Amino acid sequence: MTQQDTATHYSIDDMKTLIETMQIYKKDNSGKGITRIAYGEEDEAAHLYLAGLMKEAGLEVYRDGIGTLYARLPGKDRSLPAVGTGSHLDTVPQGGAYDGALGVIAGFYALMQYKPQQLKRDLELVVFRAEESSRFGFSCIGSKVLTGKIDKARWEQNRDDDGNNFFEVLKSLGYQHDNLDSCLVKADRYSAFVELHIEQGKRLENDKKTIGIVNGIAAPTRFSVTVNGHADHSGATPMYQRQDALVASAGIITDINRAACTEAVYGTVGTVGKLNVVPNSMNVIPGQVKFSVDIRGIDTESIQRVVQRLNNSVEKAEKDFGVSIDVQPISAESPVKLDDSICQVIESLCQKHDISYMTMLSGAGHDSMNMASLYPTAMIFTPSVAGISHHPDEFTEFSDIAVAADLLAETLGTLANQ
Amino acid sequence: MTQQDTATHYSIDDMKTLIETMQIYKKDNSGKGITRIAYGEEDEAAHLYLAGLMKEAGLEVYRDGIGTLYARLPGKDRSLPAVGTGSHLDTVPQGGAYDGALGVIAGFYALMQYKPQQLKRDLELVVFRAEESSRFGFSCIGSKVLTGKIDKARWEQNRDDDGNNFFEVLKSLGYQHDNLDSCLVKADRYSAFVELHIEQGKRLENDKKTIGIVNGIAAPTRFSVTVNGHADHSGATPMYQRQDALVASAGIITDINRAACTEAVYGTVGTVGKLNVVPNSMNVIPGQVKFSVDIRGIDTESIQRVVQRLNNSVEKAEKDFGVSIDVQPISAESPVKLDDSICQVIESLCQKHDISYMTMLSGAGHDSMNMASLYPTAMIFTPSVAGISHHPDEFTEFSDIAVAADLLAETLGTLANQ
Repeated sequence: MTQQDTATHYSIDDMKTLIETMQIYKKDNSGKGITRIAYGEEDEAAHLYLAGLMKEAGLEVYRDGIGTLYARLPGKDRSLPAVGTGSHLDTVPQGGAYDGALGVIAGFYALMQYKPQQLKRDLELVVFRAEESSRFGFSCIGSKVLTGKIDKARWEQNRDDDGNNFFEVLKSLGYQHDNLDSCLVKADRYSAFVELHIEQGKRLENDKKTIGIVNGIAAPTRFSVTVNGHADHSGATPMYQRQDALVASAGIITDINRAACTEAVYGTVGTVGKLNVVPNSMNVIPGQVKFSVDIRGIDTESIQRVVQRLNNSVEKAEKDFGVSIDVQPISAESPVKLDDSICQVIESLCQKHDISYMTMLSGAGHDSMNMASLYPTAMIFTPSVAGISHHPDEFTEFSDIAVAADLLAETLGTLANQ
Repeated sequence: MTQQDTATHYSIDDMKTLIETMQIYKKDNSGKGITRIAYGEEDEAAHLYLAGLMKEAGLEVYRDGIGTLYARLPGKDRSLPAVGTGSHLDTVPQGGAYDGALGVIAGFYALMQYKPQQLKRDLELVVFRAEESSRFGFSCIGSKVLTGKIDKARWEQNRDDDGNNFFEVLKSLGYQHDNLDSCLVKADRYSAFVELHIEQGKRLENDKKTIGIVNGIAAPTRFSVTVNGHADHSGATPMYQRQDALVASAGIITDINRAACTEAVYGTVGTVGKLNVVPNSMNVIPGQVKFSVDIRGIDTESIQRVVQRLNNSVEKAEKDFGVSIDVQPISAESPVKLDDSICQVIESLCQKHDISYMTMLSGAGHDSMNMASLYPTAMIFTPSVAGISHHPDEFTEFSDIAVAADLLAETLGTLANQ
C-alpha cells in the first residue's frame, strides 16, 4: 500500500486505454482476433502485466497457487466479508477482445473509483484462470479450483493439443499442481459477487437495452465422443468394406443439430465445436474421429432429450458403419440461479439513472456459476454487436461499456456499504 | 562403377533385411505405423541412405533437382533406351511399411540379380518423390515433374499444414524450385517401365492369387471444399441464428458417401479423408471447415454422377445452413490404360513358374500412371493381408514378396534383352 497516497483517480478514458492495451497480449501468428489460450505465454504475460499495474495503483495484490490474480481495495472494517467482482483473461482461439477481459478491466475501474473515499467493506477483484474450455476441454477450471469443484480423475484424462493435462501444465509453469487446497476461497470471503460480461448473444440488441441483469446461467452438458473405424486406402477399399469414422460422425453431428433445433423452443442449444480426424489425409479413410458435444439450456428435461438423441444416434452409427463409439461425459452441470437481492440492487440503480435494462438468463457459462455456490452472486451483461462472440468481430460499443462499468462500480459500492 | 567388381550377389534374404532396415526411417513420436511424409526429415534420410547403399553396390547413382533418386545398372548397348522400375518411399501419416517402399526395395533386388551377367539394355531404378497426397494435396508430384505435368498455379495454392507449398519446401531443402525442366525425363529414356506395388485391396486375397497383373489404373477426381459459416459462442447463440460450417459439412459428407455407395457396382469410391475445423474449440460454433473429396473409379460417367451429387449437396447446404461454400477442383485425371505387351510378358512368366495370378485394375493411383504417358508401362501387385493399407497394420507375407520380386527381376531381364 506504499503507493496508495500518490495514486490518482482512474478515469473512464484510462479504462478505454487499458482495453486497448490488453489486446497486445495475443498470439502474434494467429492472424485474426485475440488468441490468448489459458496458461499460454500471452495469458501469463497479461496476468503479470495486470498484477503490476494493480500493485502500482495501490491495490493489495496476491496471486494464488494456480496464478489466480487477486487485487483488493481495503474498506473501513476489514473483518467483514468483502464484495467481489471479476472475470477472466483467457480466450478461445481467434476470439475477441471483450469476452472476459472486459469484466476484469471494468472491475479494476470500479475498484479505483473508491480510492479517494473508503467503503465499509473491502472490494476485491478476482482474475480467474482457464475459463474457456478450449485448451483442457473443461470450462471455468480456475473458479472450480477456488470453490472446491476439482474433478481430478477427469481433468487428468483430458489433454490439450500438446498432450498435457491441466495439472501437467501447472507443473510446467511452476505453479502448485499436486495439492490445490491452498487455493480454496473461504465461505466468508465475500458478502456478494458481481461479474460484468458481454452478452455474447443478441437479445439486448434486439430489445434495444443497454444492460442485462442476469438472474440465471444455463450450464453446459458436455461429452467427448471417440469414433473408432478403420484407416484404409481411399482408392483401393470398396465402399462395402469400409469402417469410415468420419461418415459415422457426420450422421451423429446432423442428428445433434436436428435434436437441438427441435428443442429450440425451450432455449436449448447443441454444438459440435471441436473435431479431429486421424490420420487426416486426403487418401486415407478416416480411422478415428474425436469430437466434442456441448449441449446447453435452462430446461433440464429438454437437455436430456438431446442427450438421448445423441445416444440413439451413436447406437445407430455403430450398426450402420461398423465403427465402435465411446461417449465420455465431460460435465453435466445444473442451471444456476443467481441472487435476487443483488439483481434488485442493480435494477434500482438502472432505474435511478434511467438506463434501459432487461432481466435475462445467460446461455453461456461463467465463473459466476461457481462463485454462486458459495456467495450471493449476480451478473451484469453489456450488449454484443450482432450477438457475435468467440470471433475476431466480437465488439461492444464503448458508450455501452462506460454505462456498464459505472453501473458495476455503483453496484459494488452499494453492496460494500451494506 | 569402381566397386562393381567387388560387389557380391544380392540375395532374397538381403532384400528381407532391407525391408526391415527401411522401417527405421519414420517419425519417432508418431506412435503407430510408419510416418515418412514427403520431403520430411525421415523421407530425406531414407533417400540418402538408399543412395549410399546403391552406390556402394556398384550402381550408377544420380539424384535430380528435386531429389528423385536414380540407380542404373549398365547393359551391353548403352545407346538403347533402358528398362525402368521404381516406386516411392514417402508414406501417409501412420501408414505401413510396404506401400511404395516395397517397389523400391524389390527394384533394387531385381537390378542386383543382373550384376554377375550383363543384359542388352541398362536397367534403371527410379525412386519417385511425394507420391502420397498427404502433404501437398496432390499425389504423384515427383513423377508429374519428371513427365512434364507440373500445374504450377494450383501447386502453389495448396499448402501443407505448416503453410508451405511444394515449391517453398523444395527451396527450403536446397532443391531446385524455380525451373524444374532439368528434371524432365526424355521420351527415349525407357523402352519399358514396370512398378511393383502392394495391392492395397483384397481382391488377390479373396481370389487366392499371388500376383496381380495391372493393366489399368483408376485415377482420382479430387476437390478441396471450404465451407464458410460464422463462429459464434456455442452457449449464447440460438439454433436459428447459426451458420454452423461443420453441420453443413456433415450433410455433404453423408451425401458423398451415399452417392459412392450407390455407384459401388461400377467400382466407384468416394472419400472425405481430411477435414479441419476452425477455430476447433468446444465452445465455439465452427466458423469454417475445409475438407477434401477423393472420388475414384474406372467408369468416368459413374464418377461424374458422384461429382454431380457433391455439387447438389453443396447447393442445398448453402441454402439450408446459410453458409457459403467454395469447391476447388484439385485433379480430375482419366483412368490410365497400361501396356498389353508388358502384361503378356508378365503373364507368360507366371505361367512358366506356375504362379497363380489375375489381371486387374488398380483402384489406387500410382507413379506408373504418369510414366505410362511416355513409356509402355505395367504394374505387378502383391497381396495385402486383409486388404489393409495406409494403416499401421498394412502387411504382405514375405513368401508373396519373394515371388513378386523374382517375377519383377525376370520381367525386367526379359524386357532388357528385347
